Amino acid sequence: MSLLIVGSVALDTVITPFGKNNEALGGSATYFALAASYFNQPRIVAVVGEDFPEEHVQVLRTRQVDLKGLEIGDGKTFRWSGKYGYDLNERDTLATHLNVFEHFHPKLPELYRTSQFVFLGNIHPNLQLEVLDQISKPLFIACDTMNMWIENEREALGELIKRVDAIVLNDSEARELAREPNLARAARKIHDMGCRKVIIKKGEHGCLFFTPHSHFSAPAYPLESINDPTGAGDSFAGGFMGYLSRVGKVDDLAIRRAIIYGSVLASFSVELFGVDRLLSLSEEEISSRYQDFQEITRFDV
Amino acid sequence: MSLLIVGSVALDTVITPFGKNNEALGGSATYFALAASYFNQPRIVAVVGEDFPEEHVQVLRTRQVDLKGLEIGDGKTFRWSGKYGYDLNERDTLATHLNVFEHFHPKLPELYRTSQFVFLGNIHPNLQLEVLDQISKPLFIACDTMNMWIENEREALGELIKRVDAIVLNDSEARELAREPNLARAARKIHDMGCRKVIIKKGEHGCLFFTPHSHFSAPAYPLESINDPTGAGDSFAGGFMGYLSRVGKVDDLAIRRAIIYGSVLASFSVELFGVDRLLSLSEEEISSRYQDFQEITRFDV
Repeated sequence: MSLLIVGSVALDTVITPFGKNNEALGGSATYFALAASYFNQPRIVAVVGEDFPEEHVQVLRTRQVDLKGLEIGDGKTFRWSGKYGYDLNERDTLATHLNVFEHFHPKLPELYRTSQFVFLGNIHPNLQLEVLDQISKPLFIACDTMNMWIENEREALGELIKRVDAIVLNDSEARELAREPNLARAARKIHDMGCRKVIIKKGEHGCLFFTPHSHFSAPAYPLESINDPTGAGDSFAGGFMGYLSRVGKVDDLAIRRAIIYGSVLASFSVELFGVDRLLSLSEEEISSRYQDFQEITRFDV
Repeated sequence: MSLLIVGSVALDTVITPFGKNNEALGGSATYFALAASYFNQPRIVAVVGEDFPEEHVQVLRTRQVDLKGLEIGDGKTFRWSGKYGYDLNERDTLATHLNVFEHFHPKLPELYRTSQFVFLGNIHPNLQLEVLDQISKPLFIACDTMNMWIENEREALGELIKRVDAIVLNDSEARELAREPNLARAARKIHDMGCRKVIIKKGEHGCLFFTPHSHFSAPAYPLESINDPTGAGDSFAGGFMGYLSRVGKVDDLAIRRAIIYGSVLASFSVELFGVDRLLSLSEEEISSRYQDFQEITRFDV
């Protein structure tokens, strides 16, 4: 079934203790779409500037990403720059230049308006709502968000949460959104806010999934070397939504499996700088790592 | 098969945001033995003072704990006092009075020397080694340790690690012992130090188990209310060793199941103050929570 991602396409400059990436292809929609491309042909709605390199467009095309919704705005492409220390869970943003992204309003091509699976990447909740107003009868909507919107746009975010099927956020965001340190209780509060599927990413500690009636815990893959954590969360979301849209199901078991596929794609993504690893994957590598997750969690035959 | 624990029996004074315990029954061997008592009749080697209340002895006897190795020393019982804030992962030690524990040298009753399963609770590594010198042909030895010994007694600890089958420690201890922040690599370094089964407890993030050839990740139980985290690690170890000694196996699958049973006992232990929850458990509650762990981790039928 069809899959739509609305988010950012950016030029990332990233420094980690293990190397540096300069104005590389990045952004939430990019990581999402590349990860999802192993399951489906995702549709992107995003904006880039006139300076966006043609080679990056070709990279996305090579992975069969549908770019009819990629707008070219007047001005320069969104640029983000960040630095990681040896604790790769912590990063400093060195610079954010929104450029064309500053006045972005997502406009869905006609064909995209009937997309069945929709992921609202981390943009202003009012823009996420604008996307929903252009969509008719989706089967499954999930959204991301971030601390800035939780702190400053709680009302719009509350409106959004009522209209999505699932929210994907990290543990500190879940605690802040629910104003509750205990994650199980935080998830319950988010259910009460109107979203019944809460997926909480914990980085190296894996991922939790709460519905009002069930709980699932996925481990992290025990990576011995991580080169660049940028885009891990978006790769997770891409693998997650990619799998769901391929099987066309949203029951509890499908979502659990999708979380494992999301974890698989995220674990690959961080092995190399930028999107490099997401360009070189094979079906065999993905299914082999999925089997590793089965082995990692097995305790009853 | 027989199970021996060597560790501390103490009087604990604990303050959490949810209540207070004054000179309550505590200590690593106590929590261990009570948790293990749901699987076996553990033998305790420890020391208490002349002031140790008879009612605490009765509590242990009621749970069928074998107290032939519980020495009564000249002086007062080991006392520990600690305080937890709202982040129950952090605690401040308010006071430690070793008393009779200061000059403790474990002496195993004759019958205990052929114990098949042995757990060396967190005491000085030289004392842990003294225990091993008194044991003949055990089937499985596991040990705990702590940051103080890692920092100050690295040589003795290195000697110990070569002589145990498994080490159970928390994530910060594993990082410090291996001098390596990545837990997968830290585990590999501990394998290289001579111990092939490394079990790393991560509190609210569950538990990891590494051998040179396999990896297992166990989730934490999603508790919504924790009253007193004291003894969680020892309860884990007690459930873990209790299960192994009951089934008399130490293969990879048995250890994975034992880790789940350890997690079950730890999750119960923290629900009430001190050892209270470990005194009121039923077989049904334990097997029901074990099934919850199966449900929490299931993603392939």
